Amino acid sequence: MRPTGRLHLGNYVGALENWVRLQDSYENYHLVADWHTLTTDYEHTRQIPENVFEMVTDWLAAGIDPEKSPIFVQSAVKQHAELYLIFNMLISTSRLERNPTLKDQVRDLEIEDNVSAGHLTYPVLQAADILLYKGEVVPVGEDQLPHIEITRELARRFNNVYSPASPVFPEPDGLLTKFPRLPGLDGKRMSKSLGNTILLSDSADEIKGKMRKAVTDPQKVRRNDPGRPDVCLIFSYHQKFNESEVSEIRSGCESGALGCVDCKVRCSDRVISHLAPIHEKRAQIEKDHTIVPAVLAEGAKRARVIAEQTMSEVHQAMGFGA
Amino acid sequence: MRPTGRLHLGNYVGALENWVRLQDSYENYHLVADWHTLTTDYEHTRQIPENVFEMVTDWLAAGIDPEKSPIFVQSAVKQHAELYLIFNMLISTSRLERNPTLKDQVRDLEIEDNVSAGHLTYPVLQAADILLYKGEVVPVGEDQLPHIEITRELARRFNNVYSPASPVFPEPDGLLTKFPRLPGLDGKRMSKSLGNTILLSDSADEIKGKMRKAVTDPQKVRRNDPGRPDVCLIFSYHQKFNESEVSEIRSGCESGALGCVDCKVRCSDRVISHLAPIHEKRAQIEKDHTIVPAVLAEGAKRARVIAEQTMSEVHQAMGFGA
Repeated sequence: MRPTGRLHLGNYVGALENWVRLQDSYENYHLVADWHTLTTDYEHTRQIPENVFEMVTDWLAAGIDPEKSPIFVQSAVKQHAELYLIFNMLISTSRLERNPTLKDQVRDLEIEDNVSAGHLTYPVLQAADILLYKGEVVPVGEDQLPHIEITRELARRFNNVYSPASPVFPEPDGLLTKFPRLPGLDGKRMSKSLGNTILLSDSADEIKGKMRKAVTDPQKVRRNDPGRPDVCLIFSYHQKFNESEVSEIRSGCESGALGCVDCKVRCSDRVISHLAPIHEKRAQIEKDHTIVPAVLAEGAKRARVIAEQTMSEVHQAMGFGA
Repeated sequence: MRPTGRLHLGNYVGALENWVRLQDSYENYHLVADWHTLTTDYEHTRQIPENVFEMVTDWLAAGIDPEKSPIFVQSAVKQHAELYLIFNMLISTSRLERNPTLKDQVRDLEIEDNVSAGHLTYPVLQAADILLYKGEVVPVGEDQLPHIEITRELARRFNNVYSPASPVFPEPDGLLTKFPRLPGLDGKRMSKSLGNTILLSDSADEIKGKMRKAVTDPQKVRRNDPGRPDVCLIFSYHQKFNESEVSEIRSGCESGALGCVDCKVRCSDRVISHLAPIHEKRAQIEKDHTIVPAVLAEGAKRARVIAEQTMSEVHQAMGFGA
């Protein structure tokens, strides 16, 4: 995950909560992808350390266990850069230009004539991020599947060319888990740049206040008007955080018995109680500023052991570079 | 220089001899660019260590003094890869595609649809090679000047974005020295792939034999026919290795008094005597197989100290990445 600072509920529901679950059934590696932030914004790097600190605080608060799964910063494990350099030799620019996710980004950011070499090759860096740890399964969103495909191609190419008899790299699979997409408070995709987020670290009052101002079904103008839960973003929050009351909320909204103000209060109460243990843990972590740096130092140490081992296999397969 | 194995006289006259001269007036760094060989041939890496060994033996034999100027292998100093990764973020693919030297290579190699990402970005790796040591002067051939320009742009971009008050990198200049181009024995560009070389390590007999079969002026058919020194490749060797007799050779050839067989014998004698001290030194180095590895280990150690220092300035300027 790129270090974007404090995480919002969308990050939590879409990824973090899943990672917490996965750490019991897999040997996980949690990478803070700081070099990746340069691909779309190389000019603003000074806030990266704080963003890392805040994001990792959220990870820990949400239940990532650094004993089970190392948490580390990409730029602290230099082998990522070396494997990236080597992989760049094994893939054509035309292959990278066909990457549909890149095409979407280039269109969205309007940078047709100004794609950096680092941006074009960022799936190659991702491949290095994954294969350095011989990752077999990568939990991703649908837009990242083309990158898993590039990772698989690079693993295959490397193995075929340098080590056909005993492959160095696995060909990882994307683990696509369908989550209820949690919309932002204006109904659009939740995103910091749109200012429509609830942060994982928002206080109870902040959550109540934000939710009070959230958009609901525009056809439900007066308290007793019948509403349409399926077009209301608050209802998706109930589906996620208030499962036991979903059918009651639905019928109350549709009949007009439940007004939006009450509905929102009940919703924010559930979100707040869901986040309570996370907030409690965050408060503990915030009290001791040495916790996050220590977790990252220990994670990098563990990651480097694996990374060095993989690179030594890479050097042996290629016959040079040690 | 890429590790191509034993060097030929063209490498010597065009570069190596100049480096030996420069090491008295500059603080030189001599890089064996092994990662660069992957840009145009990633499939054949197993012979790289031997090629490195043979090339560095030639460097030492020709007079590069590893005490004065560290000799080291690129892949042994991992900071090259990290700085390359960072620089890739600071340059657009369209800028790299405009590189005329790349265009020539792509045309010559007929790889229009199959340029690797590593090939496209190899001037970025070169920039890292140079700027990691804050190189101010880079002795290059004319075809490499576009790469020096890219290096200057990257230095400027980095300084402007991350450290405008105290620039981290100098903007290096290319040092273009005009050398008599030494043709191959068929009159074409001297190149191993054309099989027309004299190697720096060729024995006296090999040199005599090769030169005996060299092409001369096709109009000089019989011994006493007048010849045209300026179209004869042997004459360029006289100009380089037999300066004191050049005018006598010219008039002898033009009048028909000097036949090609004698002219070639005189030429190979001069080449052989020029190479004698190099051969003597090579023989010493070949006797002790630990010399080259020790030189490279010591060179990498010295290079890493500088590279680490530069990267720590890079991390400080960017505010992250240490």
